[in-house]
Amino acid sequence: MPTNAFQLHPRLAKDTLVVGDLPLCRLLLMNDARFPWCLLVPRQASLRELHDLSAADLGRLTTEVVSVSRALETHCRTFKINLGALGNLVPQLHVHVVGRREDDDAWPGPVWGHGQAMPYEETEAARLRKVLQAACGLTSAR
Amino acid sequence: MPTNAFQLHPRLAKDTLVVGDLPLCRLLLMNDARFPWCLLVPRQASLRELHDLSAADLGRLTTEVVSVSRALETHCRTFKINLGALGNLVPQLHVHVVGRREDDDAWPGPVWGHGQAMPYEETEAARLRKVLQAACGLTSAR
Repeated sequence: MPTNAFQLHPRLAKDTLVVGDLPLCRLLLMNDARFPWCLLVPRQASLRELHDLSAADLGRLTTEVVSVSRALETHCRTFKINLGALGNLVPQLHVHVVGRREDDDAWPGPVWGHGQAMPYEETEAARLRKVLQAACGLTSAR
Repeated sequence: MPTNAFQLHPRLAKDTLVVGDLPLCRLLLMNDARFPWCLLVPRQASLRELHDLSAADLGRLTTEVVSVSRALETHCRTFKINLGALGNLVPQLHVHVVGRREDDDAWPGPVWGHGQAMPYEETEAARLRKVLQAACGLTSAR
């Protein structure tokens, strides 16, 4: 599928803030101050499952997951990284990278479906986006 | 870490049935007939996060995740594959590959933490292990 056919699913667009575009994925920050929680969305049309990606793109996705995981570990005092690719509600392929802390709101359960999102204060969202952009080699959000 | 230092975490051993050993991971079947649900556990000591793996082993893990995902899709009438690496309760790195159906017990929520496991009947467990072994190129469980 051509890259230019990619459109972010409206539900993902509504729930997140854009951090920027990595080689394969759009990097998003969930607008939920309870957890440092990123989404990686490969910028290709019609992807539903991880194994819909080519082998080369699977390698790129893995590299980007590792990069975001390390960024959250380094900059967000996380205790554990939780990874997930579910897509039961939003069919567009997206990978969750969530920094967990032993005192967070959902610990030790998963974050998915847990309570209500608490939107970021504007300054904190801007700070965190800049931190992630720098840590992942991005210079600006699109 | 040497491969021979690997020991399966007792909680994972208790909750699962062994399917066999892929090149990197031990393939396990969760003993829960509500969902076709596999675990992949890299056979290396002291792994906690996905990014603790070498780049080569990350590639192997991805290949094995894809292989198990396709096996569940093909043989278990799944509607969606859910992938997860959490490790909040069991620190040993393990990846969940779960076949989901729109009429399953937890749909559309995640399976983790949902209700109580329903152990397989012995014949159904044996059948499913054989199906997975054949689909993933394994000849026998260890």
